[in-house]
Amino acid sequence: MMSLPEIAIRLPEWVASTVDFGRPYVGDQERMRLAIELSRQNVVRGTGGPFGAAIFERASGTLVAVGVNSVVRLNNCTLHGEMVAFMMAQARLGSFSLRAEGGPEHELVTSCEPCAMCLGATLWSGVTRVVCGAHRDDARRLDFDEGPVFPESHAYLRARGIEIVDGVLRDEANAVLELYRAGKGTIYNG
Amino acid sequence: MMSLPEIAIRLPEWVASTVDFGRPYVGDQERMRLAIELSRQNVVRGTGGPFGAAIFERASGTLVAVGVNSVVRLNNCTLHGEMVAFMMAQARLGSFSLRAEGGPEHELVTSCEPCAMCLGATLWSGVTRVVCGAHRDDARRLDFDEGPVFPESHAYLRARGIEIVDGVLRDEANAVLELYRAGKGTIYNG
Repeated sequence: MMSLPEIAIRLPEWVASTVDFGRPYVGDQERMRLAIELSRQNVVRGTGGPFGAAIFERASGTLVAVGVNSVVRLNNCTLHGEMVAFMMAQARLGSFSLRAEGGPEHELVTSCEPCAMCLGATLWSGVTRVVCGAHRDDARRLDFDEGPVFPESHAYLRARGIEIVDGVLRDEANAVLELYRAGKGTIYNG
Repeated sequence: MMSLPEIAIRLPEWVASTVDFGRPYVGDQERMRLAIELSRQNVVRGTGGPFGAAIFERASGTLVAVGVNSVVRLNNCTLHGEMVAFMMAQARLGSFSLRAEGGPEHELVTSCEPCAMCLGATLWSGVTRVVCGAHRDDARRLDFDEGPVFPESHAYLRARGIEIVDGVLRDEANAVLELYRAGKGTIYNG
């Protein structure tokens, strides 16, 4: 009988010195700057694709968790930055939902618009707001296929109470995608 | 400085005695029977939602990996049966894609049609075929929200060379959903 594999998901070492759990991140731009810095460091340190994400308490700006794209590093196609951030936030809170009765509302801040998988996960995650940097067309220019995301997909989430904000610091987010392209980073479509 | 969480994903103990890696599974029905048995055991043993999945080599029927819904057990909204199966298969093969140059083609067999997240992941996974048991409307009847999946979503995957087969042993798959409903299992939407 073959043994069943066990999956271990860790963030790269450098993440601990890039984030600050001890202070609030105020406003969309400051929160986005963290997501973009995570994406940039992920490229510069050679630990993955040009995508970073963070989960905050909406009202207080308290940082709950972060994620960086880890597909190639951990040989796991599901580990987009947003997915890692959701997993880490839920591990920290000990809950499969970030929308606990009476608890604070949470938001996802991501350096690039979520792909089909991450958009689906956003619905399950319990966040009530999503803030995006680069547009999915920016990612497509690098030949990252974003999957079956349609205008109706965003409408579907909005109809379930999830606010979606596009294009926050898009140029800065985009610059990291271009940095990855210039370095001939792996494009890891299935 | 807060320490960063680490995620560990293991299948429940009972899985090892339910699967057989030593023999081929021949044909869609036999492969689906395994996915349904995994979903059924997951309910009976109380280890998660009524969903099971398996990855096979298409031509030989060799079992590569399995997954069961682990959202509640592991406090992680991303751990649908299909997602766990993809992760386990890629861990076993040591690759983020199941479509290696010159390697065998792989397929996903799932006891219920994939939700938006799992359909997106299907595209990244590298499988070239998906076989579904229960229809997503069957899951919706239990108030599982399947997310933004549209007819165009399936067309999008098909246009990229992924074959999708619906309704294999749908009644048997559906019976497990009903078993879960009868036992008042947790519905874990965000």
